[in-house]
Amino acid sequence: MANAFVAPPPPLKDELDIVIPTIRNLDFLEMWRPFFEPYHLIIVQDGDPSKTIKVPSGFDYELYNRNDINKILGPRSSCISFKDSACRCFGYMVSKKKYIFTIDDDCFVANDPSGKAVNALQQHIKNLLCPSTPLFFNTLYDPFREGADFVRGYPFSLREGVPTAISHGLWLNIPDYDAPTQLVKPLERNTRYVDTVLTIPKGTLFPMCGMNLAFDRDLIGPAMYFGLMGDGQPIGRYDDMWAGWCCKVICDHLGLGIKTGLPYIYHSKASNPFVNLRKEYKGIFWQEDIIPFFQSLTLPKEATTVQKCYIELSKQVKEKLSKIDPYFDKLADAMVTWIEAWDELNPQGPSQANGKA
Amino acid sequence: MANAFVAPPPPLKDELDIVIPTIRNLDFLEMWRPFFEPYHLIIVQDGDPSKTIKVPSGFDYELYNRNDINKILGPRSSCISFKDSACRCFGYMVSKKKYIFTIDDDCFVANDPSGKAVNALQQHIKNLLCPSTPLFFNTLYDPFREGADFVRGYPFSLREGVPTAISHGLWLNIPDYDAPTQLVKPLERNTRYVDTVLTIPKGTLFPMCGMNLAFDRDLIGPAMYFGLMGDGQPIGRYDDMWAGWCCKVICDHLGLGIKTGLPYIYHSKASNPFVNLRKEYKGIFWQEDIIPFFQSLTLPKEATTVQKCYIELSKQVKEKLSKIDPYFDKLADAMVTWIEAWDELNPQGPSQANGKA
Repeated sequence: MANAFVAPPPPLKDELDIVIPTIRNLDFLEMWRPFFEPYHLIIVQDGDPSKTIKVPSGFDYELYNRNDINKILGPRSSCISFKDSACRCFGYMVSKKKYIFTIDDDCFVANDPSGKAVNALQQHIKNLLCPSTPLFFNTLYDPFREGADFVRGYPFSLREGVPTAISHGLWLNIPDYDAPTQLVKPLERNTRYVDTVLTIPKGTLFPMCGMNLAFDRDLIGPAMYFGLMGDGQPIGRYDDMWAGWCCKVICDHLGLGIKTGLPYIYHSKASNPFVNLRKEYKGIFWQEDIIPFFQSLTLPKEATTVQKCYIELSKQVKEKLSKIDPYFDKLADAMVTWIEAWDELNPQGPSQANGKA
Repeated sequence: MANAFVAPPPPLKDELDIVIPTIRNLDFLEMWRPFFEPYHLIIVQDGDPSKTIKVPSGFDYELYNRNDINKILGPRSSCISFKDSACRCFGYMVSKKKYIFTIDDDCFVANDPSGKAVNALQQHIKNLLCPSTPLFFNTLYDPFREGADFVRGYPFSLREGVPTAISHGLWLNIPDYDAPTQLVKPLERNTRYVDTVLTIPKGTLFPMCGMNLAFDRDLIGPAMYFGLMGDGQPIGRYDDMWAGWCCKVICDHLGLGIKTGLPYIYHSKASNPFVNLRKEYKGIFWQEDIIPFFQSLTLPKEATTVQKCYIELSKQVKEKLSKIDPYFDKLADAMVTWIEAWDELNPQGPSQANGKA
């Protein structure tokens, strides 16, 4: 039955890692302590490696700075961004767990409309453990949620759903706006708690935000590359977008699902819109070509693993996006380097997707 | 700006008709009186024409029974279902207004979580007056709603949106389940008020329910045909589904949008699941072929009006679905008859879609 889904126990410590790009604010960890303390943290320091991040006692963590990344990956460390939170994807690569939850250090615990603290991690795990329904839209949203089901007219052959690879959570307070929107609406706050989770339909792209994101590393990990951003790159704030577009076309191809909606976190602080505009402005132009590229992209049948899909994608990026800017030529190479590094650190072989295309 | 949308005044009386398939319960109209009294009602009596529907005073209405339909349409009345609420589409055809709101007589006024009565009509009009965004998913849902906007990474070229043709509202209390789900979960009630409106993405089908539905007659009216159901037909309870699948592929082709979510109504009474199973069981098989048919269907570029799209669709139904059952041959003919009848009653010429494909 569709909604025989029972809330799972929180996954065991050895099934999930929390990846944090950097921690500038110790209140962040204190606030999340009751939820995060049982898990292992992977902190990837995004800036100057000579600075020290102090982690309060009680947390189980490993910390990587740029020197560590260079040492572990050698020449392949070129694929990991420096001085940008995009470096977090190094944490996805060194983790050995099935699930990853990644969160920014300006994201605090949200309250639901009843005032109860939202256990974001638990909701992400619920989302990842129950199937997605990308092939047909269910008007009562996630049919696997308690008190919901597939509505009249939903084909029975599609009710098994497909495995969920990604759970995309949302943000109360400061919404995830681009620089132009931030500039135009400096006072806008998101106060609407929309009590739902839904599958992004097959064939539809979405803007994936890395602030509050979980995924099944076995199913989609090698596609969760946050690109080349920050120091020495012509663009920023498109790391999670890039990963989202790549993941979406690969999930669609491999028959995997992506959910969005709950859980909310409380996003405390808007980043500087002027700084953001400088980082984003090339992306604002480029995305007008990138989106049609991803919308029309097809992957060959032989691409049966995430790695194979990703290598094929890198070829198409080189072939079709390099004409926009030489940056994409470099990015396509970095995508290949990323997969080489992933496979080196994860020698058990490529992830086998078990979805239905 | 995306959310410069200001709540519109309720449309003038001469812009909207309320179409009700039948009224078995006078409480229904009394409950809706404050919301419906300013508008014109079109009641299409679904059963025995010798029975009289008593409409309380104060309502402005016209009522059609089977004899009226036969008189107005002559031989073409064969396309209108008898003894089934699918007959409501006759009301869409005789209306001369821009907007239609259709509702079942077991749907009462819902309350929002604060306890306030939901003005369903007003929310539908809001949905229809602001654009849809079928070409890219916005994670904060309807970007045109107050307090929301397009999120970071949403292409700027797509932020104008497309005209909204259909607003699909939802149901608290009794969910719209098929007979098997009703049988298995007799006690399930929908108590979750999801405070959102969203666009169904292009290329994605959904199960459209006719219980609480509004549409722009100028944009999509001729495709809102509820098929052949009820008396003399081998199937029931697929009238709105059929209309929804046809409308979705035509909206996708013509660059029009469909929104779902708010407003809720309170659905008071579950229909008999045994009766429903009898009506539905052929549909349960057939939809397994119908869905792939609609998913793979393409309309030619020359189909630039709803009527042209619909006639083309009828040809493909005849060609590809008749092999499932002779019923589809009859249905394809009825689709043509429907368009002939529509054009006869609406001689101002075909609706001109003004969306972007």
